[in-house]
Amino acid sequence: MEGAAVDHLAHERSRAQFDVEAMKIAWAGSKHAVDVADRMARLVASDPVFKKDNRMMLGRKELFKNTLRKAAHAWKRINELRLTEEEASMLRIFVDEPGYVDLHWGMFVPAIKGQGTDEQQKKWLPLAYRMQIIGCYAQTELGHGSNVQGLETTATFDPKTDEFIIHSPTLTSSKWWPGGLGKISTHAVVYARLITDGKDHGINGFIVQLRSLDDHSPLPGIVVGDIGTKFGNGAYNTMDNGVLRFDHVRIPRNQMLMRVSQVTREGKFVQSDVPRQLLYGTMVYVRQTIVSDASKALSRAVCIAVRYSAVRRQFGSQDGSPETQVIDYKTQQSRLFPLLASAYAFRFVGEWLKWLYRDVTERLQANDFSTLPEAHACTAGLKSLTTSVTADGIEECRKLCGGHGYLCSSGLPELFAVYVPACTYEGDNVVLLLQVARFLMKTVSQLGSGKKPVGTTAYMGSVQHLLQSKCDVLTAEDWLKPSVILEAFEARAIRLAVNCAKNISKFPSQEEGFSELSADLVEVAIAHCQLIIVSKFIDKVKEDIQGHGVKELLQILCNVYALSLVHKHLGDFVSTGYITPRQGALANEQLRFLYAQVRPNAVALVDAFNYTDHYLGSILGRFDGNVYPKLYEEAWKDPLNDTVVPDGYHEYIRPLLKQKFTVSRM
Amino acid sequence: MEGAAVDHLAHERSRAQFDVEAMKIAWAGSKHAVDVADRMARLVASDPVFKKDNRMMLGRKELFKNTLRKAAHAWKRINELRLTEEEASMLRIFVDEPGYVDLHWGMFVPAIKGQGTDEQQKKWLPLAYRMQIIGCYAQTELGHGSNVQGLETTATFDPKTDEFIIHSPTLTSSKWWPGGLGKISTHAVVYARLITDGKDHGINGFIVQLRSLDDHSPLPGIVVGDIGTKFGNGAYNTMDNGVLRFDHVRIPRNQMLMRVSQVTREGKFVQSDVPRQLLYGTMVYVRQTIVSDASKALSRAVCIAVRYSAVRRQFGSQDGSPETQVIDYKTQQSRLFPLLASAYAFRFVGEWLKWLYRDVTERLQANDFSTLPEAHACTAGLKSLTTSVTADGIEECRKLCGGHGYLCSSGLPELFAVYVPACTYEGDNVVLLLQVARFLMKTVSQLGSGKKPVGTTAYMGSVQHLLQSKCDVLTAEDWLKPSVILEAFEARAIRLAVNCAKNISKFPSQEEGFSELSADLVEVAIAHCQLIIVSKFIDKVKEDIQGHGVKELLQILCNVYALSLVHKHLGDFVSTGYITPRQGALANEQLRFLYAQVRPNAVALVDAFNYTDHYLGSILGRFDGNVYPKLYEEAWKDPLNDTVVPDGYHEYIRPLLKQKFTVSRM
Ligand SMILES: Cc1cc2nc3c(=O)[nH]c(=O)nc-3n(C[C@H](O)[C@H](O)[C@H](O)COP(=O)(O)OP(=O)(O)OC[C@H]3O[C@@H](n4cnc5c(N)ncnc54)[C@H](O)[C@@H]3O)c2cc1C
Ligand SMILES: Cc1cc2nc3c(=O)[nH]c(=O)nc-3n(C[C@H](O)[C@H](O)[C@H](O)COP(=O)(O)OP(=O)(O)OC[C@H]3O[C@@H](n4cnc5c(N)ncnc54)[C@H](O)[C@@H]3O)c2cc1C
Repeated sequence: MEGAAVDHLAHERSRAQFDVEAMKIAWAGSKHAVDVADRMARLVASDPVFKKDNRMMLGRKELFKNTLRKAAHAWKRINELRLTEEEASMLRIFVDEPGYVDLHWGMFVPAIKGQGTDEQQKKWLPLAYRMQIIGCYAQTELGHGSNVQGLETTATFDPKTDEFIIHSPTLTSSKWWPGGLGKISTHAVVYARLITDGKDHGINGFIVQLRSLDDHSPLPGIVVGDIGTKFGNGAYNTMDNGVLRFDHVRIPRNQMLMRVSQVTREGKFVQSDVPRQLLYGTMVYVRQTIVSDASKALSRAVCIAVRYSAVRRQFGSQDGSPETQVIDYKTQQSRLFPLLASAYAFRFVGEWLKWLYRDVTERLQANDFSTLPEAHACTAGLKSLTTSVTADGIEECRKLCGGHGYLCSSGLPELFAVYVPACTYEGDNVVLLLQVARFLMKTVSQLGSGKKPVGTTAYMGSVQHLLQSKCDVLTAEDWLKPSVILEAFEARAIRLAVNCAKNISKFPSQEEGFSELSADLVEVAIAHCQLIIVSKFIDKVKEDIQGHGVKELLQILCNVYALSLVHKHLGDFVSTGYITPRQGALANEQLRFLYAQVRPNAVALVDAFNYTDHYLGSILGRFDGNVYPKLYEEAWKDPLNDTVVPDGYHEYIRPLLKQKFTVSRM
Repeated sequence: MEGAAVDHLAHERSRAQFDVEAMKIAWAGSKHAVDVADRMARLVASDPVFKKDNRMMLGRKELFKNTLRKAAHAWKRINELRLTEEEASMLRIFVDEPGYVDLHWGMFVPAIKGQGTDEQQKKWLPLAYRMQIIGCYAQTELGHGSNVQGLETTATFDPKTDEFIIHSPTLTSSKWWPGGLGKISTHAVVYARLITDGKDHGINGFIVQLRSLDDHSPLPGIVVGDIGTKFGNGAYNTMDNGVLRFDHVRIPRNQMLMRVSQVTREGKFVQSDVPRQLLYGTMVYVRQTIVSDASKALSRAVCIAVRYSAVRRQFGSQDGSPETQVIDYKTQQSRLFPLLASAYAFRFVGEWLKWLYRDVTERLQANDFSTLPEAHACTAGLKSLTTSVTADGIEECRKLCGGHGYLCSSGLPELFAVYVPACTYEGDNVVLLLQVARFLMKTVSQLGSGKKPVGTTAYMGSVQHLLQSKCDVLTAEDWLKPSVILEAFEARAIRLAVNCAKNISKFPSQEEGFSELSADLVEVAIAHCQLIIVSKFIDKVKEDIQGHGVKELLQILCNVYALSLVHKHLGDFVSTGYITPRQGALANEQLRFLYAQVRPNAVALVDAFNYTDHYLGSILGRFDGNVYPKLYEEAWKDPLNDTVVPDGYHEYIRPLLKQKFTVSRM
């Protein structure tokens, strides 16, 4: 892409057995999506304001200021070029720097859309759309994150003035973490306990202005600031995650988000006839974007590690021939290729979630809430699973690059540091898996009752069959049949679930059993979510997919994804009695054959992600593979190399070297 | 320790069922070791020069200069107080900042000791001991790390002048990574291909002066600098990992390290009668220190996560009572307690390695090389296993702290970033495990031959028994017997090894089989290493251990360590046929009971590490548990909070908010 002077990976590219351009379309979803991404990526890459390779050298203040600059410039370009919403959001993705705009567009606007009345939306959304106000999402407090119902900030209705008094009664009630809050947001959706007439009605959202629109100073009664440095160089330090305290701050009554519950002029609390479940729609939406981000982050890491593994050679030179490319080592393949397959798997399950979101939305509009619990559990589980695997996967990719992966210029440290909080925000991953497990236990308990499990739990309808059947694999080849793979994952998931339900029933109470066995329940939930991903990947491969060899490669990746999980969780599969140790060994054998099939296509498979060098931000992952000269060049840019003799030499090194010793023990 | 005003963990401490002071001794190894550590830790903590909580706010240059200052100050204190070597090394540990001194003492000095002749030692060591020269260890190049035999730097003997000409013939031959090289070292042990009379004799070490002792400028022909920013804020960025190129630099012949091979005045290459194996002694020593560092790093992370999990409450409040401490959730326990147990396990296996090093050294002196291959494999494997688990474990501890773990003030991000390269340096962990596997395959192949396996492979002598026996566990209680646990790990290890050996033999050649099955071989090596750790922990618990409840708690931790591995690797244990799925379930059940026994002792078990708040460097891990007020205070120190309105507001935010829109789509 940038500078075609050399291509150290040309040989790799020529070996690919499929049509890369067609794979780009399969990955992106459509030709249109490829085109938009292409244009936006180039736009960003070619604009010096969006330069990002200096990030790790900037102090917090400069770093932050630079992010403000980029955000303003992006907004300018979006308007100048009259970009569509799709294009604008793509552009923001390629700018690739967490900033207050993420929360403004990603949380503040959706919160008002989801929880505001029509009137409130009419008032606030145009301001937000034009960025005449900038908003954030202020839920978490110093003392409470996962347990939202435990938030301590109060919003007490004062009927005398028709206002709410927002207050932080304790230190732990300080808002803590909201992105964009620390230094930038003029407004926030603040979650607080609604109190009317001395009665606590639980948590509601309120639109609260935080800063003057004239000079940006915090309004009276408000203390606000940044919570400090976070993991990594650059990374999330471009974001002003904030702390916020209220000292009896008054807001008009109509700034409570009143779509599902209201407070009247008299201070009466009333539920509207809009069902509460509507709120889940937003949650499904947000989680779907997180799954899609997971595939993006993992694919970036994998792209870097695959390309560098093809460039890097170590050992195995016979009589002067070049050494072995490290990607040819089976250990390297067994660590890397399952992650490559996972990136594709997450991409496709993410696309499917978009469908699910539309389906849920349509049903909600038709007052059909029947699929909501399942959709909720499914998205919670997929959010948890994909983010955990991605976080670990990025670090594994870094290790796969040996020593050089530890340099910031490899791009991997920052990718990791900026990504890991996805395991925590929008629901701690373990807390989410427990919710999934709870739903699964309920589904299992209702299996006899005639209530048919729906959507991703439909397989549980075949519980009898799945508890009794046995895997009929006789050869390694047999593991290539989608039906074989699918039933193995179904049988494993339901057997673990049924076992767990049985074990729970041995406890004095359901609750006690659930909490005592919660570690097992997490494993049940994981098994269920892995099944979902496997089955959606299988569905994808069944689709009509264009392009030479594309379907074949996706089939191979699907099998790699599934069989690497069989190997990793062999204990589940074997100890629930569905597969024998021998069949497990055959799965492992097949896996090796599959790796050999991936190998010649590996570089082309990551090329299909269509990432620019700017977006990848990695010397090791350069498209042209020209790693060594560029690493060498880059080193000299470090501030420590500004002078040959380092600052501090005269004070702290020279005196050491020149000291005279009289100490006897020396 | 610091400020006994509050102790939010007092209740936890009062619940402990064992004598914490005695446990400190068991952990540290002796009362003497506790005392030294105590004194040195306080010395460092009370000295303002050693302050470290500002690290993440410093730019690279300031950070680096500050490290130089600390190193000089430490050296001054060491001399002023006439500290013993033990005390000095403890003091450096508590200064807790990677710096050039680590390589000087940890690699440069040992390299000369190990590879220099007596004469060379006499010349160079006193200079190094007095720090009149500062040295580093320059082995790795841009193009070669794992494959040391592939290094490209040349050292060509010039008989005319009796000198070696050190040269970097290619870009990839640039030295790259050596710590202390970039800005500080005056000398290096440089590894280069020795060439005499046109003949390449492979890699040898050379003492090369790099910088002028007068003004620190690089000597003629030498280009040297820093390789740039690395993972994390602070972390390894205090170290000047360097790049180095030679343009025909001449050094006297007697600066080749000549203990095992020599070049004569005439340019003849001769092997000395000192056996090459002697060099392995150093390797065993270095790896032993890495294992000991692993237990240190993991125990720090665990200490933070345990204390914070006892402070943090979330959910489960009934009618106004306090919420549940998150450490009471079984999921939290099942993630945290195995890591707590691992910290202890690694500590004890590290202590055992000290014994092994002494044993090896004595045997070497007696020309007994029989145990070397086993000692080499064992230390390679333990280095790999403990560093991998520690790296992952630190990140898991961070996640266990929820959102707040992502703040640098939690201490965990930096602990992670500074630790992870341990998986790569001193041997990439996968490359090391393959060496272990190779040794194990050899041992298996010799089992019939009458050659008795020694040391940590002695169990392989009982191969017949271990292949045939079955686990006789009937109740969860049975899993508490050390003999049951030990045999399970032995049987698993040898069965995996024998299976693998069989599978290899099906390939046309041993080499092909080994490379094709290398992913399985890594698992064989891991199983073997886990067995070593389990068995050393069991041995430790058998010792005479003082103090009320101490032995009992160690027994519990030993069981947690072993059974959590049985659960994690259930696939191995079940599919090799040694345990049944039912027995696996019983192990898991027992694990739950064990967690319940650990729970009341958890805080005391991390107190036993005896870490000061300075050393921990974590607000979440504070001894007094006073987390929230201190987090809040700390936030305001961030540079972004220097001003209420951030730099950049006028340029990049105000214009946004104030813009007038004419764009129709808005
Ligand atoms: C980078 C970043 C950005 C963020 N942005 C925002 C934002 O814009 N707005 C906002 O409002 N918030 C934001 N947050 C806060 C985030 O939503 C919370 O951190 C998250 O919800 C987790 O909650 P917590 O921190 O309280 O974790 P905790 O709940 O304290 O978790 C600590 C530990 O306890 C365990 N645990 C807790 N409850 C249970 C249970 N019931 N059962 C078993 N285990 C349990 C968890 O698994 C975890 O291991 C952000 C956080 C981060 C890190
Ligand atoms: C913080 C830090 C400090 C360091 N300090 C020093 C120092 O002071 N002095 C010094 O000389 N060096 C130093 N090093 C360099 C370090 O020793 C090397 O990085 C290390 O030996 C790994 O080698 P590599 O980087 O070449 O990895 P590579 O060998 O390139 O590894 C890349 C990948 O290839 C795989 N691989 C390689 N060979 C094989 C094989 N045969 N079979 C299967 N897989 C294989 C690896 O598993 C890995 O996944 C340092 C490195 C770091 C990160």
